[in-house]
Amino acid sequence: MHTRFILIQTSHAGNVGAAARAMKVMGFTDLVLVSPRWANVLRREETIQRASGALDVLNNARIVDTLDEALEGMSHVCATAMTPRDFGPPTFEPRAHFANLVAQQDNNAQQGVAFLFGSERFGMRNEDVYRCHACLSIPTDPKFGSLNLASAVQVLAYDWRQALGGFAVQSATPQASVADAQQVAGMLAHWEQALTHIGFLDPESPKKLMPRLNQLFNRAHLSEEEIHILRGVAKQMLLSDPHKR
Amino acid sequence: MHTRFILIQTSHAGNVGAAARAMKVMGFTDLVLVSPRWANVLRREETIQRASGALDVLNNARIVDTLDEALEGMSHVCATAMTPRDFGPPTFEPRAHFANLVAQQDNNAQQGVAFLFGSERFGMRNEDVYRCHACLSIPTDPKFGSLNLASAVQVLAYDWRQALGGFAVQSATPQASVADAQQVAGMLAHWEQALTHIGFLDPESPKKLMPRLNQLFNRAHLSEEEIHILRGVAKQMLLSDPHKR
Repeated sequence: MHTRFILIQTSHAGNVGAAARAMKVMGFTDLVLVSPRWANVLRREETIQRASGALDVLNNARIVDTLDEALEGMSHVCATAMTPRDFGPPTFEPRAHFANLVAQQDNNAQQGVAFLFGSERFGMRNEDVYRCHACLSIPTDPKFGSLNLASAVQVLAYDWRQALGGFAVQSATPQASVADAQQVAGMLAHWEQALTHIGFLDPESPKKLMPRLNQLFNRAHLSEEEIHILRGVAKQMLLSDPHKR
Repeated sequence: MHTRFILIQTSHAGNVGAAARAMKVMGFTDLVLVSPRWANVLRREETIQRASGALDVLNNARIVDTLDEALEGMSHVCATAMTPRDFGPPTFEPRAHFANLVAQQDNNAQQGVAFLFGSERFGMRNEDVYRCHACLSIPTDPKFGSLNLASAVQVLAYDWRQALGGFAVQSATPQASVADAQQVAGMLAHWEQALTHIGFLDPESPKKLMPRLNQLFNRAHLSEEEIHILRGVAKQMLLSDPHKR
Protein backbone atom coordinates (compact mmCIF):
# COMPACT_ATOMS: atom_id res chain seq x y z
CA MET A 1 0.00 0.00 0.00
CA HIS A 2 1.46 3.34 -1.02
CA THR A 3 2.11 5.67 1.92
CA ARG A 4 2.49 9.44 1.85
CA PHE A 5 3.36 11.91 4.59
CA ILE A 6 1.89 15.38 4.10
CA LEU A 7 3.09 18.36 6.15
CA ILE A 8 0.75 21.33 6.02
CA GLN A 9 2.17 24.84 6.50
CA THR A 10 5.21 23.64 8.39
CA SER A 11 7.19 26.56 9.76
CA HIS A 12 10.44 25.02 11.10
CA ALA A 13 12.91 23.84 8.49
CA GLY A 14 14.53 21.50 11.02
CA ASN A 15 11.25 19.64 11.42
CA VAL A 16 11.03 19.02 7.66
CA GLY A 17 14.51 17.50 7.65
CA ALA A 18 13.86 15.44 10.79
CA ALA A 19 10.54 14.23 9.34
CA ALA A 20 12.31 13.05 6.17
CA ARG A 21 14.80 11.12 8.27
CA ALA A 22 12.05 9.67 10.48
CA MET A 23 10.18 8.45 7.39
CA LYS A 24 13.21 6.96 5.72
CA VAL A 25 14.35 4.85 8.68
CA MET A 26 10.94 3.21 8.47
CA GLY A 27 11.20 2.74 4.70
CA PHE A 28 8.82 5.51 3.57
CA THR A 29 9.90 8.04 0.95
CA ASP A 30 6.86 10.02 -0.30
CA LEU A 31 6.84 13.46 1.33
CA VAL A 32 4.59 16.34 0.24
CA LEU A 33 4.63 19.83 1.73
CA VAL A 34 1.54 22.01 1.47
CA SER A 35 2.45 25.71 1.43
CA PRO A 36 5.39 25.56 3.83
CA ARG A 37 6.57 28.77 5.46
CA TRP A 38 9.83 28.77 3.47
CA ALA A 39 9.54 28.21 -0.27
CA ASN A 40 13.14 26.96 -0.31
CA VAL A 41 12.66 24.75 2.77
CA LEU A 42 13.94 21.63 0.99
CA ARG A 43 17.30 23.28 0.39
CA ARG A 44 17.80 25.12 3.68
CA GLU A 45 20.85 24.26 5.75
CA GLU A 46 18.90 23.25 8.84
CA THR A 47 16.65 20.97 6.81
CA ILE A 48 19.59 19.16 5.28
CA GLN A 49 21.41 18.85 8.61
CA ARG A 50 18.44 17.35 10.42
CA ALA A 51 17.66 15.03 7.49
CA SER A 52 21.02 13.36 8.11
CA GLY A 53 21.30 10.90 5.20
CA ALA A 54 17.69 11.15 4.01
CA LEU A 55 18.52 13.54 1.19
CA ASP A 56 16.73 11.43 -1.40
CA VAL A 57 13.46 11.95 0.48
CA LEU A 58 14.04 15.72 0.35
CA ASN A 59 15.05 15.61 -3.31
CA ASN A 60 11.89 13.72 -4.24
CA ALA A 61 9.60 15.77 -2.01
CA ARG A 62 6.98 17.93 -3.70
CA ILE A 63 5.74 21.35 -2.64
CA VAL A 64 2.11 22.14 -3.52
CA ASP A 65 -0.26 25.00 -2.78
CA THR A 66 -3.32 23.11 -1.63
CA LEU A 67 -4.18 19.96 0.28
CA ASP A 68 -6.23 18.81 -2.72
CA GLU A 69 -3.14 18.53 -4.87
CA ALA A 70 -1.34 16.63 -2.13
CA LEU A 71 -4.10 14.02 -1.89
CA GLU A 72 -3.92 12.72 -5.46
CA GLY A 73 -3.96 8.92 -5.43
CA MET A 74 -4.69 8.70 -1.69
CA SER A 75 -7.84 6.77 -0.76
CA HIS A 76 -7.49 6.70 3.02
CA VAL A 77 -6.57 9.96 4.69
CA CYS A 78 -5.60 10.22 8.35
CA ALA A 79 -5.45 13.50 10.23
CA THR A 80 -3.14 13.89 13.19
CA ALA A 81 -5.23 16.33 15.15
CA MET A 82 -7.77 16.76 17.82
CA THR A 83 -11.16 16.17 16.24
CA PRO A 84 -13.22 19.32 15.75
CA ARG A 85 -15.70 19.95 18.54
CA ASP A 86 -18.79 19.80 16.37
CA PHE A 87 -18.28 16.71 14.23
CA GLY A 88 -15.61 15.01 12.21
CA PRO A 89 -13.95 11.69 11.54
CA PRO A 90 -13.73 9.23 14.40
CA THR A 91 -10.65 9.35 16.63
CA PHE A 92 -8.45 6.28 16.98
CA GLU A 93 -5.20 5.24 18.59
CA PRO A 94 -2.76 4.69 15.73
CA ARG A 95 -1.90 1.12 16.63
CA ALA A 96 -5.48 -0.09 16.81
CA HIS A 97 -6.47 1.77 13.65
CA PHE A 98 -3.51 0.43 11.69
CA ALA A 99 -4.36 -3.14 12.68
CA ASN A 100 -7.88 -2.57 11.35
CA LEU A 101 -6.65 -0.96 8.16
CA VAL A 102 -4.33 -3.84 7.40
CA ALA A 103 -7.04 -6.38 8.23
CA GLN A 104 -9.48 -4.69 5.83
CA GLN A 105 -6.88 -4.18 3.13
CA ASP A 106 -7.90 -7.22 1.10
CA ASN A 107 -11.53 -6.13 0.98
CA ASN A 108 -11.01 -2.47 0.37
CA ALA A 109 -8.05 -2.45 -1.96
CA GLN A 110 -6.97 0.93 -0.62
CA GLN A 111 -4.85 2.68 -3.20
CA GLY A 112 -2.89 4.81 -0.84
CA VAL A 113 -2.74 5.99 2.75
CA ALA A 114 -1.86 9.58 3.63
CA PHE A 115 -0.88 10.97 7.03
CA LEU A 116 -1.51 14.69 7.49
CA PHE A 117 0.34 16.90 9.95
CA GLY A 118 -0.66 20.48 10.68
CA SER A 119 1.56 23.43 11.43
CA GLU A 120 3.65 23.50 14.61
CA ARG A 121 1.73 26.41 16.11
CA PHE A 122 -1.86 25.88 15.02
CA GLY A 123 -2.20 22.21 14.17
CA MET A 124 -4.70 21.33 11.46
CA ARG A 125 -7.55 23.52 10.30
CA ASN A 126 -11.00 22.01 10.75
CA GLU A 127 -11.70 22.21 7.03
CA ASP A 128 -8.65 20.02 6.42
CA VAL A 129 -9.73 17.55 9.11
CA TYR A 130 -13.16 17.22 7.47
CA ARG A 131 -11.40 15.77 4.42
CA CYS A 132 -10.11 12.83 6.44
CA HIS A 133 -11.37 9.32 7.16
CA ALA A 134 -9.83 9.10 10.60
CA CYS A 135 -8.21 11.23 13.28
CA LEU A 136 -5.17 9.61 14.82
CA SER A 137 -4.31 10.58 18.35
CA ILE A 138 -0.97 9.42 19.72
CA PRO A 139 -1.66 8.56 23.35
CA THR A 140 0.39 11.05 25.36
CA ASP A 141 0.39 12.13 28.97
CA PRO A 142 -2.79 14.16 29.49
CA LYS A 143 -0.69 16.62 31.51
CA PHE A 144 1.85 17.17 28.69
CA GLY A 145 0.73 16.31 25.20
CA SER A 146 3.21 18.52 23.35
CA LEU A 147 4.69 16.10 20.86
CA ASN A 148 7.28 17.48 18.46
CA LEU A 149 6.19 17.33 14.80
CA ALA A 150 9.06 15.09 13.68
CA SER A 151 8.54 12.89 16.74
CA ALA A 152 4.91 12.42 15.74
CA VAL A 153 6.04 11.48 12.23
CA GLN A 154 8.51 9.01 13.77
CA VAL A 155 5.93 7.34 15.99
CA LEU A 156 3.35 6.99 13.20
CA ALA A 157 5.94 5.80 10.67
CA TYR A 158 7.12 3.21 13.18
CA ASP A 159 3.64 1.98 14.06
CA TRP A 160 2.52 1.89 10.43
CA ARG A 161 5.63 0.00 9.37
CA GLN A 162 5.10 -2.48 12.18
CA ALA A 163 1.47 -2.94 11.10
CA LEU A 164 2.66 -3.60 7.55
CA GLY A 165 4.85 -6.42 8.79
CA GLY A 166 7.91 -4.55 9.98
CA PHE A 167 11.57 -4.99 9.28
CA ALA A 168 13.48 -7.89 10.70
CA VAL A 169 15.74 -7.38 13.66
CA GLN A 170 19.00 -9.22 13.57
CA SER A 171 21.48 -9.91 16.27
CA ALA A 172 25.17 -9.63 15.48
CA THR A 173 25.88 -12.14 18.23
CA PRO A 174 25.84 -15.78 17.17
CA GLN A 175 23.12 -17.74 18.92
CA ALA A 176 24.61 -19.42 21.98
CA SER A 177 23.80 -23.07 22.39
CA VAL A 178 21.88 -23.52 25.66
CA ALA A 179 23.26 -26.13 28.03
CA ASP A 180 20.92 -28.95 28.93
CA ALA A 181 20.03 -29.95 32.50
CA GLN A 182 22.51 -32.83 32.48
CA GLN A 183 25.39 -30.48 31.65
CA VAL A 184 24.27 -28.12 34.42
CA ALA A 185 24.12 -31.02 36.89
CA GLY A 186 27.63 -32.15 35.86
CA MET A 187 29.00 -28.67 36.35
CA LEU A 188 27.29 -28.40 39.75
CA ALA A 189 28.83 -31.72 40.87
CA HIS A 190 32.21 -30.29 39.84
CA TRP A 191 31.52 -27.16 41.87
CA GLU A 192 30.36 -29.17 44.86
CA GLN A 193 33.72 -30.95 44.87
CA ALA A 194 35.58 -27.69 44.46
CA LEU A 195 33.65 -25.80 47.12
CA THR A 196 34.24 -28.68 49.51
CA HIS A 197 37.95 -28.64 48.64
CA ILE A 198 38.40 -24.96 49.42
CA GLY A 199 36.38 -25.32 52.62
CA PHE A 200 33.35 -23.26 51.69
CA LEU A 201 30.94 -26.24 51.68
CA ASP A 202 30.84 -28.52 54.68
CA PRO A 203 29.71 -31.98 53.49
CA GLU A 204 28.55 -32.72 57.05
CA SER A 205 26.22 -29.74 56.95
CA PRO A 206 25.65 -28.76 53.33
CA LYS A 207 22.52 -26.71 54.09
CA LYS A 208 20.79 -25.80 50.84
CA LEU A 209 23.85 -24.41 49.13
CA MET A 210 23.87 -26.68 46.06
CA PRO A 211 20.12 -26.47 45.39
CA ARG A 212 20.37 -22.69 45.71
CA LEU A 213 23.19 -22.57 43.17
CA ASN A 214 21.14 -24.90 40.96
CA GLN A 215 18.24 -22.45 41.04
CA LEU A 216 20.51 -19.50 40.32
CA PHE A 217 22.05 -21.24 37.29
CA ASN A 218 18.65 -22.38 36.04
CA ARG A 219 17.45 -18.79 35.97
CA ALA A 220 20.59 -17.77 34.09
CA HIS A 221 19.91 -20.19 31.19
CA LEU A 222 23.58 -21.16 30.91
CA SER A 223 25.17 -21.67 27.52
CA GLU A 224 27.57 -24.54 26.86
CA GLU A 225 30.38 -22.00 26.65
CA GLU A 226 29.51 -20.79 30.16
CA ILE A 227 29.47 -24.40 31.47
CA HIS A 228 33.08 -24.66 30.30
CA ILE A 229 33.98 -21.41 32.04
CA LEU A 230 32.38 -22.52 35.30
CA ARG A 231 34.03 -25.94 35.12
CA GLY A 232 37.35 -24.16 34.53
CA VAL A 233 36.79 -22.18 37.73
CA ALA A 234 35.98 -25.39 39.64
CA LYS A 235 39.08 -27.10 38.25
CA GLN A 236 41.26 -24.19 39.35
CA MET A 237 39.73 -24.20 42.82
CA LEU A 238 40.56 -27.89 43.11
CA LEU A 239 44.21 -27.11 42.24
CA SER A 240 44.46 -24.51 44.95
CA ASP A 241 45.89 -24.99 48.37
CA PRO A 242 42.95 -24.54 50.71
CA HIS A 243 43.15 -21.86 53.37
CA LYS A 244 43.46 -23.49 56.78
CA ARG A 245 40.96 -22.13 59.23
CA MET B 1 7.67 0.18 37.61
CA HIS B 2 10.19 2.99 37.82
CA THR B 3 11.64 3.94 34.44
CA ARG B 4 14.88 5.80 33.76
CA PHE B 5 16.40 7.05 30.52
CA ILE B 6 20.19 7.20 30.51
CA LEU B 7 22.11 9.09 27.83
CA ILE B 8 25.79 8.18 27.67
CA GLN B 9 28.30 10.76 26.36
CA THR B 10 25.69 12.66 24.38
CA SER B 11 27.31 15.35 22.25
CA HIS B 12 24.38 17.40 20.84
CA ALA B 13 22.59 19.62 23.32
CA GLY B 14 19.49 19.67 21.10
CA ASN B 15 19.17 15.92 21.46
CA VAL B 16 19.15 16.18 25.25
CA GLY B 17 16.31 18.70 25.12
CA ALA B 18 14.37 16.70 22.55
CA ALA B 19 14.87 13.52 24.58
CA ALA B 20 13.44 15.24 27.67
CA ARG B 21 10.39 16.30 25.68
CA ALA B 22 9.99 12.84 24.14
CA MET B 23 10.06 11.26 27.62
CA LYS B 24 7.63 13.73 29.15
CA VAL B 25 4.90 13.32 26.53
CA MET B 26 4.90 9.65 27.46
CA GLY B 27 4.83 10.41 31.18
CA PHE B 28 8.46 9.59 32.06
CA THR B 29 10.60 12.05 34.01
CA ASP B 30 13.79 10.36 35.22
CA LEU B 31 16.70 11.39 32.98
CA VAL B 32 20.37 10.73 33.77
CA LEU B 33 23.30 11.87 31.65
CA VAL B 34 26.60 10.01 31.87
CA SER B 35 29.57 12.32 31.12
CA PRO B 36 27.88 14.43 28.43
CA ARG B 37 30.09 16.46 26.11
CA TRP B 38 28.94 19.76 27.66
CA ALA B 39 29.01 19.99 31.44
CA ASN B 40 26.36 22.72 31.29
CA VAL B 41 24.21 20.84 28.76
CA LEU B 42 21.07 21.07 30.92
CA ARG B 43 21.20 24.86 30.80
CA ARG B 44 22.25 25.44 27.18
CA GLU B 45 19.94 27.43 24.95
CA GLU B 46 19.48 24.70 22.35
CA THR B 47 18.64 22.17 25.05
CA ILE B 48 15.96 24.38 26.52
CA GLN B 49 14.50 25.25 23.12
CA ARG B 50 14.18 21.67 21.98
CA ALA B 51 12.80 20.59 25.38
CA SER B 52 9.80 22.81 24.70
CA GLY B 53 7.80 22.62 27.96
CA ALA B 54 9.72 19.71 29.49
CA LEU B 55 11.85 21.94 31.69
CA ASP B 56 11.02 19.98 34.84
CA VAL B 57 12.65 16.91 33.30
CA LEU B 58 15.80 18.95 32.64
CA ASN B 59 15.72 20.50 36.10
CA ASN B 60 15.46 17.09 37.76
CA ALA B 61 18.01 15.43 35.47
CA ARG B 62 21.27 14.24 37.02
CA ILE B 63 24.72 14.29 35.50
CA VAL B 64 27.09 11.53 36.66
CA ASP B 65 30.57 10.40 35.68
CA THR B 66 30.02 6.68 35.28
CA LEU B 67 27.32 4.30 34.11
CA ASP B 68 27.52 2.55 37.51
CA GLU B 69 26.22 5.65 39.28
CA ALA B 70 23.42 5.97 36.74
CA LEU B 71 22.21 2.42 37.33
CA GLU B 72 21.40 2.75 41.03
CA GLY B 73 18.01 1.19 41.72
CA MET B 74 17.66 -0.27 38.22
CA SER B 75 17.15 -4.04 38.05
CA HIS B 76 16.50 -4.47 34.34
CA VAL B 77 18.83 -2.66 31.99
CA CYS B 78 18.21 -2.37 28.26
CA ALA B 79 20.87 -1.29 25.78
CA THR B 80 19.88 0.37 22.54
CA ALA B 81 22.72 -0.90 20.43
CA MET B 82 23.85 -3.51 18.06
CA THR B 83 24.94 -6.47 20.11
CA PRO B 84 28.70 -6.99 20.24
CA ARG B 85 29.98 -9.48 17.71
CA ASP B 86 31.42 -11.91 20.23
CA PHE B 87 28.68 -12.29 22.83
CA GLY B 88 26.28 -10.18 24.80
CA PRO B 89 22.68 -9.88 25.88
CA PRO B 90 20.03 -11.21 23.53
CA THR B 91 18.57 -8.81 20.96
CA PHE B 92 14.84 -8.13 20.93
CA GLU B 93 12.34 -5.93 19.17
CA PRO B 94 11.17 -3.42 21.76
CA ARG B 95 7.47 -4.25 21.45
CA ALA B 96 7.89 -7.99 21.93
CA HIS B 97 10.37 -7.53 24.78
CA PHE B 98 8.14 -5.05 26.59
CA ALA B 99 5.17 -7.40 26.40
CA ASN B 100 7.33 -10.09 28.01
CA LEU B 101 8.64 -7.74 30.67
CA VAL B 102 5.16 -6.66 31.67
CA ALA B 103 3.92 -10.26 31.67
CA GLN B 104 6.76 -11.31 34.00
CA GLN B 105 6.44 -8.28 36.21
CA ASP B 106 4.38 -10.01 38.90
CA ASN B 107 6.91 -12.79 39.27
CA ASN B 108 10.06 -10.76 39.10
CA ALA B 109 9.10 -7.65 40.99
CA GLN B 110 11.51 -5.59 38.91
CA GLN B 111 12.52 -2.50 40.83
CA GLY B 112 13.30 -0.36 37.87
CA VAL B 113 13.88 -0.43 34.16
CA ALA B 114 16.63 1.61 32.52
CA PHE B 115 17.05 2.40 28.84
CA LEU B 116 20.60 3.23 27.76
CA PHE B 117 21.50 5.31 24.72
CA GLY B 118 25.05 5.69 23.45
CA SER B 119 26.68 8.73 21.89
CA GLU B 120 25.48 10.03 18.52
CA ARG B 121 28.70 9.19 16.75
CA PHE B 122 29.88 5.96 18.34
CA GLY B 123 26.84 4.33 19.92
CA MET B 124 27.43 2.27 23.03
CA ARG B 125 30.75 0.80 24.09
CA ASN B 126 30.79 -2.98 24.35
CA GLU B 127 31.72 -2.82 28.03
CA ASP B 128 28.53 -0.85 28.68
CA VAL B 129 26.44 -3.30 26.63
CA TYR B 130 27.79 -6.21 28.71
CA ARG B 131 26.12 -4.63 31.75
CA CYS B 132 22.68 -5.03 30.17
CA HIS B 133 19.99 -7.69 30.30
CA ALA B 134 18.73 -7.04 26.78
CA CYS B 135 19.64 -5.26 23.58
CA LEU B 136 16.69 -3.46 22.02
CA SER B 137 16.78 -2.97 18.28
CA ILE B 138 14.16 -0.69 16.76
CA PRO B 139 13.25 -2.34 13.46
CA THR B 140 14.36 0.11 10.78
CA ASP B 141 14.90 -0.13 7.07
CA PRO B 142 18.00 -2.29 6.56
CA LYS B 143 19.07 0.20 3.88
CA PHE B 144 18.84 3.23 6.22
CA GLY B 145 18.97 2.54 9.93
CA SER B 146 20.13 6.00 10.99
CA LEU B 147 17.62 6.83 13.71
CA ASN B 148 18.06 10.16 15.47
CA LEU B 149 18.83 9.81 19.21
CA ALA B 150 15.75 11.71 20.36
CA SER B 151 13.60 9.79 17.86
CA ALA B 152 14.85 6.53 19.35
CA VAL B 153 13.96 7.84 22.82
CA GLN B 154 10.50 8.78 21.49
CA VAL B 155 9.83 5.38 19.95
CA LEU B 156 10.94 3.46 23.05
CA ALA B 157 9.09 5.78 25.42
CA TYR B 158 5.96 5.33 23.32
CA ASP B 159 6.22 1.55 23.12
CA TRP B 160 7.05 1.19 26.80
CA ARG B 161 4.15 3.44 27.84
CA GLN B 162 1.82 1.45 25.61
CA ALA B 163 3.08 -1.79 27.19
CA LEU B 164 2.41 -0.32 30.64
CA GLY B 165 -1.21 0.27 29.68
CA GLY B 166 -0.96 3.56 27.81
CA PHE B 167 -2.82 6.80 28.14
CA ALA B 168 -6.42 7.09 27.07
CA VAL B 169 -7.28 8.77 23.81
CA GLN B 170 -10.31 10.98 23.87
CA SER B 171 -12.29 12.43 21.05
CA ALA B 172 -13.53 15.99 21.32
CA THR B 173 -16.43 15.12 19.01
CA PRO B 174 -19.54 13.84 20.74
CA GLN B 175 -20.36 10.29 19.73
CA ALA B 176 -22.87 10.44 16.86
CA SER B 177 -25.88 8.17 17.27
CA VAL B 178 -25.88 5.66 14.40
CA ALA B 179 -29.12 5.41 12.43
CA ASP B 180 -30.77 2.01 12.38
CA ALA B 181 -31.74 0.15 9.20
CA GLN B 182 -35.36 1.21 9.50
CA GLN B 183 -34.39 4.89 9.50
CA VAL B 184 -32.16 4.31 6.47
CA ALA B 185 -35.02 2.53 4.66
CA GLY B 186 -37.39 5.41 5.47
CA MET B 187 -34.90 7.95 4.15
CA LEU B 188 -34.41 5.89 0.97
CA ALA B 189 -38.17 5.70 0.37
CA HIS B 190 -38.23 9.51 0.70
CA TRP B 191 -35.39 9.77 -1.83
CA GLU B 192 -37.08 7.35 -4.21
CA GLN B 193 -40.12 9.64 -4.24
CA ALA B 194 -37.96 12.72 -4.73
CA LEU B 195 -35.79 11.23 -7.46
CA THR B 196 -38.92 10.15 -9.28
CA HIS B 197 -40.35 13.65 -8.86
CA ILE B 198 -37.37 15.38 -10.40
CA GLY B 199 -37.27 12.84 -13.22
CA PHE B 200 -33.99 11.13 -12.36
CA LEU B 201 -35.63 7.79 -11.49
CA ASP B 202 -38.03 6.18 -13.95
CA PRO B 203 -40.50 3.99 -11.97
CA GLU B 204 -41.11 1.97 -15.15
CA SER B 205 -37.41 1.12 -15.37
CA PRO B 206 -35.80 1.69 -11.98
CA LYS B 207 -32.73 -0.42 -12.76
CA LYS B 208 -30.75 -1.01 -9.56
CA LEU B 209 -30.60 2.65 -8.54
CA MET B 210 -32.24 2.33 -5.11
CA PRO B 211 -30.34 -0.83 -4.05
CA ARG B 212 -27.11 0.85 -5.14
CA LEU B 213 -27.88 3.90 -3.00
CA ASN B 214 -28.81 1.57 -0.17
CA GLN B 215 -25.36 -0.08 -0.37
CA LEU B 216 -23.61 3.29 -0.54
CA PHE B 217 -25.41 4.54 2.58
CA ASN B 218 -24.84 1.27 4.41
CA ARG B 219 -21.10 1.64 3.93
CA ALA B 220 -21.28 5.20 5.19
CA HIS B 221 -22.78 4.18 8.57
CA LEU B 222 -25.18 7.14 8.62
CA SER B 223 -25.88 9.01 11.82
CA GLU B 224 -29.40 10.12 12.75
CA GLU B 225 -28.30 13.70 12.13
CA GLU B 226 -27.29 12.74 8.59
CA ILE B 227 -30.66 11.01 8.01
CA HIS B 228 -32.28 14.38 8.79
CA ILE B 229 -29.99 16.16 6.33
CA LEU B 230 -30.71 13.65 3.55
CA ARG B 231 -34.47 13.80 4.22
CA GLY B 232 -34.23 17.59 4.04
CA VAL B 233 -32.64 17.29 0.60
CA ALA B 234 -35.44 14.92 -0.54
CA LYS B 235 -38.10 17.28 0.82
CA GLN B 236 -36.60 20.18 -1.08
CA MET B 237 -36.38 18.15 -4.29
CA LEU B 238 -40.09 17.35 -3.94
CA LEU B 239 -40.85 21.08 -3.67
CA SER B 240 -39.01 21.84 -6.87
CA ASP B 241 -40.52 22.28 -10.28
CA PRO B 242 -39.19 19.37 -12.33
CA HIS B 243 -37.23 20.15 -15.45
CA LYS B 244 -39.24 19.15 -18.52
CA ARG B 245 -37.25 16.98 -20.88
